[in-house]
Parts: sequence; C-alpha cells; structure tokens
Amino acid sequence: MAGPVWNLGRLNHVAIAVPDLEKAIAFYKNVLGAQVSDVVPLPEHGVSVVFVNLGNTKMELLHPLGSNSPIAGFLKKNEAGGMHHICIEVDDINKAVMDLKSKKIRSLSEGAKIGAHGKPVIFLHPKDCGGVLVELEQA
Amino acid sequence: MAGPVWNLGRLNHVAIAVPDLEKAIAFYKNVLGAQVSDVVPLPEHGVSVVFVNLGNTKMELLHPLGSNSPIAGFLKKNEAGGMHHICIEVDDINKAVMDLKSKKIRSLSEGAKIGAHGKPVIFLHPKDCGGVLVELEQA
Repeated sequence: MAGPVWNLGRLNHVAIAVPDLEKAIAFYKNVLGAQVSDVVPLPEHGVSVVFVNLGNTKMELLHPLGSNSPIAGFLKKNEAGGMHHICIEVDDINKAVMDLKSKKIRSLSEGAKIGAHGKPVIFLHPKDCGGVLVELEQA
Repeated sequence: MAGPVWNLGRLNHVAIAVPDLEKAIAFYKNVLGAQVSDVVPLPEHGVSVVFVNLGNTKMELLHPLGSNSPIAGFLKKNEAGGMHHICIEVDDINKAVMDLKSKKIRSLSEGAKIGAHGKPVIFLHPKDCGGVLVELEQA
C-alpha cells in the first residue's frame, strides 16, 4: 500500500559543526571569499549559527551554545569539526513523517518539531539513512 | 598583498560515501522519492557514482570501484557510510589554487586535476578547512 503522498524538495543547507567559530568565519569569508552572515545565537536550539550563502543553497556553521548543545557530542568525537547533517525541504512534513514511519525509518523525535528556521523539521536516524543525519524541513 | 582574483560559486554537490550502493539507491529513490540516476562507473577515479537530483544542487553517492579506491579508507573508518566531501564551484581554478597556496591552505595535489565531471578540480586539506574535505571545481 502506498504511503501518504509528499514530495522531496531542494537542499536547504549543509550543516558543519565548528569548534572555533571565528576561525571558521575567517576561512569561509576571507579565504574562500564567500558571503557570510553575522553570528545568530539560537539558545533554544543550543547553537550559534553562521550562514554561508552559496547562491543555490547555503552552509550553516554550527557552534555549541550553552551547556546542553546537541552538537557537543559530535565535536567531542570530531575535534576538528566536520559535516554534521544535510537538510532537505519537503512539501508536507506531517505526511512525510507518517510515510517514513510506515517505511520503518526511525527519527530522532516522535513527530516534527519547530527547527532553527522557525519551521517544522524532523531529523531521521543516521542508521536508517546510510550513516547520514538527514533533516527534513517544511518548505 | 591581495592574491589573484577569483570567485566562489554555487554548491555543486555533497558527496556521500556508501558501503552498499543498492541500499543507498533504494533509500533516496524509494524512501525519499528523489530523482536518482543510473550507476555511473568511473574506474579512473576508483568510484561508482549515483547522482541524486535535488533541483538546486545534487548529492553524489560514491561507492568504491577497484582495488585502490580513494574512499576505501573513509569507509573503513565509517562502516555505515557518511558525508565525504562538499564541492563548490569556482570561476578560475588556477587563480584559486595560487591564491589558496599563498594563504597557506594545503591541498591534496600539487595543482588542479581533472575530476569526476571532466573538469579541473582540487581537494583542499580538511585540516585547513575546519575538518571538512572541500573540493573546488572549475565552473
């Protein structure tokens, strides 16, 4: 039986966990010459974010904020930093969540939650996604 | 002194190393419903590639091909697979190579080489790029 109908959209961003935010900003801004945003503190998400605009999509530099950051564990294992997750847009996140559940794809929360951009998101379990942490975001 | 003038462009692709190509194709095609290419063997690059079209950019699923694959070591360390590199376009790769060298950013080859798309590319050292393997490709 076919699951609920939903469509995958564009790549919203690639997220990079960085141990040294100033150094990362200097790399993308001064070395590569990319268009880089100010630092945006998101205490409710436990990260400070810097957006690197690449025209067709963006990179998001994530740095831990506060004592219970969701990227603290990643940076402990990857001290130099590294690629943390990819975020792909979907047209109907609730249908996507139901469909993926029916296909036995685990997610990191029971349903969609409000993400860093103020839109509903869900993170899928890397073990069910070929080792990649995949975030789906309502377009 | 300013280095040679070159410009960073769009995100060409995010590369994912996958230990099981059929399983990865099934995930992106059947579970996520993405538009997925046939398998493209690139023996001269030691990988088989599958392109996942996301509209604004693409993902490339890389699977080892032959006995000396450049992604064999990564998959040994990351048995489930994972994000391998990002590729950003540049308007003049030779100027980029010269400029980055002057800025003490190490690369994995002496100069640009022909990459998997038949265009000149260079891989920058992850230790100089915040833990991320960054490929630059001539647009």
